[in-house]
Amino acid sequence: MTVGSLRTPAILIDRATALRNLDRMQAEAIANGIRLRPHAKTHKSPLVARWQVDRGAIGICCAKLGEAEVFADAGIENIRIPYPLHPANADRLVALSNRTHLSFIVDHPAVAKQWSEALVRRARQIDVLVKIDVGFHRCGIDPAAAGAVDMIRMVASLPGLRLKGLLSHAGHAYHAHTEDELKAMADTEARTMRELADRCRSAGVKIEEISAGATPPARFSITQKGFTEYRPGNYVYFDRTQVALGAATFDDCALTVLATVVSKPAPDRVIFDSGSKTLTNDGARGFDAAPGHGVVIDHPDLLIERLSEEHAIVKATKGSTKLEPGDRVRIIPNHSCVVSNLVDQAWLVDGDGAEALPIAARGRIT
Amino acid sequence: MTVGSLRTPAILIDRATALRNLDRMQAEAIANGIRLRPHAKTHKSPLVARWQVDRGAIGICCAKLGEAEVFADAGIENIRIPYPLHPANADRLVALSNRTHLSFIVDHPAVAKQWSEALVRRARQIDVLVKIDVGFHRCGIDPAAAGAVDMIRMVASLPGLRLKGLLSHAGHAYHAHTEDELKAMADTEARTMRELADRCRSAGVKIEEISAGATPPARFSITQKGFTEYRPGNYVYFDRTQVALGAATFDDCALTVLATVVSKPAPDRVIFDSGSKTLTNDGARGFDAAPGHGVVIDHPDLLIERLSEEHAIVKATKGSTKLEPGDRVRIIPNHSCVVSNLVDQAWLVDGDGAEALPIAARGRIT
Repeated sequence: MTVGSLRTPAILIDRATALRNLDRMQAEAIANGIRLRPHAKTHKSPLVARWQVDRGAIGICCAKLGEAEVFADAGIENIRIPYPLHPANADRLVALSNRTHLSFIVDHPAVAKQWSEALVRRARQIDVLVKIDVGFHRCGIDPAAAGAVDMIRMVASLPGLRLKGLLSHAGHAYHAHTEDELKAMADTEARTMRELADRCRSAGVKIEEISAGATPPARFSITQKGFTEYRPGNYVYFDRTQVALGAATFDDCALTVLATVVSKPAPDRVIFDSGSKTLTNDGARGFDAAPGHGVVIDHPDLLIERLSEEHAIVKATKGSTKLEPGDRVRIIPNHSCVVSNLVDQAWLVDGDGAEALPIAARGRIT
Repeated sequence: MTVGSLRTPAILIDRATALRNLDRMQAEAIANGIRLRPHAKTHKSPLVARWQVDRGAIGICCAKLGEAEVFADAGIENIRIPYPLHPANADRLVALSNRTHLSFIVDHPAVAKQWSEALVRRARQIDVLVKIDVGFHRCGIDPAAAGAVDMIRMVASLPGLRLKGLLSHAGHAYHAHTEDELKAMADTEARTMRELADRCRSAGVKIEEISAGATPPARFSITQKGFTEYRPGNYVYFDRTQVALGAATFDDCALTVLATVVSKPAPDRVIFDSGSKTLTNDGARGFDAAPGHGVVIDHPDLLIERLSEEHAIVKATKGSTKLEPGDRVRIIPNHSCVVSNLVDQAWLVDGDGAEALPIAARGRIT
């Protein structure tokens, strides 16, 4: 296929750009003696996971068992699920662990005990890490709490679980307002994790791994002492938010949405056929988060002002645009991970050539 | 299956509630002598479309050809696409018109002429309506513009196109602040459409149909004189936004998201396994649009404060909650249509029984 012949909207992945992004992050990881374990949520594609592993990644991360099942079936041999799985999923987890080297996280004492019982009952032992809240205040135990080390020691003592170490995710980095603030978040995360690991070791708890990961602070985090593993996800494609957070340039953005102008109701308004069903309503984030549902390449005067499910309502901020129905544009979305999740298939693009890229782990919500 | 045995998150459709919603709207349409043509975007399910047609709907609407193809293959015999399709899709449109009675809209003179040429070249004539902008300022021609009637007459004159009438969508009703404002929007839409139709008829242009449709103003619009057809979509499931717009009660909401508490990092914070990959980041709308990413049934003290892709971060606004990991909740989402688009399959629920409901037209973006 050629890009020009694709039906729109279409999700395009520029192969050379994506590979360059993978190469760069892998080189950074190797240079800093840290293992790279990309989060597959951004691409949800076994082919892209294979690219990552072939470049030296130790394995991948998945958010849900359903995603991990797809990648295990595709031959990915080491999968970590940095998600607080519930023991109701014990049978699925054990079945999956027969097909890939599996690990996951715990962050709640009662859940950890239930996992232990469930795995002992099934005569299995699975690697776990304890999730630490380093400031995002989503999951994870509070590292400053009096009982933090006790909780980790308790997990280490549970049969059926093999404690490997500590894991964090600086999701609050997405809300940093300045480069300095972002760097401070990265520094704090690393210090927090090192200090907690030291306290654990002093208490006789073995901590082999300290795993962190998020694309926005990667440039600051990957050089920190103490981390053994880094788990960026978005870096394969990047997006408008990552550019606004200083993690990438627009030239690094590998995922774009190809759209067609389907109407021009006024000289200063055009309608693209890419609505929230391709761009999603995820807002822009970053240091100077600008309005709009993505950036229209080569049309800096266009503002994607509103989305319906199937329409982008686009304002020409300089009063008019030369775009007419039938013209095509490419859009860098605010958030590329959620775009991948909307379609069964993207297109891998080399110049004007396009080949199908199945998104096999799309929609695996459980 | 039983609801209790489902993996979570899961999209549940309460069958009795959905059928009651269909019955009510159909009865309203019949009582007012108006044809009902539901928009299938909300359910994307051939089974639900069949329920609608079996109750008396004249057919359905789809937003894109890809959706219409699914429903035509499932035997739906009358499909309208109220979307400004581009003539690049002429071959697909003609092929589809061989399998179902098809109609679509035009709202741009050059596009209408290109469609005419494309259809004449293929020796076909297809029904069209001209889209009128009644205040949403998305697509559609300005009914107050000097050339509005001329544009409609021009379409009527084009070979290959068979002008059936006028079509509107009061999407701005979603942004109404009060019941009175919503009713005024409905009144204005109806008056605008009647007057424009009269002007067309005075100019010798035959207008057989005046089609309108949107769930929020349906209770005011369906009783208006002049409309021949109404096209609500969301009314089959409703959602938090429709409740906030006075179009439904929470008891009318047929679609809920079943979620499990996967962590409780603090007494006032629990994590559900339903993130933006099930609830989406579509915000709440309505007269008193409240914050939060949905309503947790039976837990009025819980605020779904933030979403990650796979996590809902939920605050207990009264300081603590009794929910513990493993507990299950049901959530009424802000916007049900976009939830349907995220999964291959929902569950049709009768009491505690659950059977698979394939969402066959999910993700058909072109």
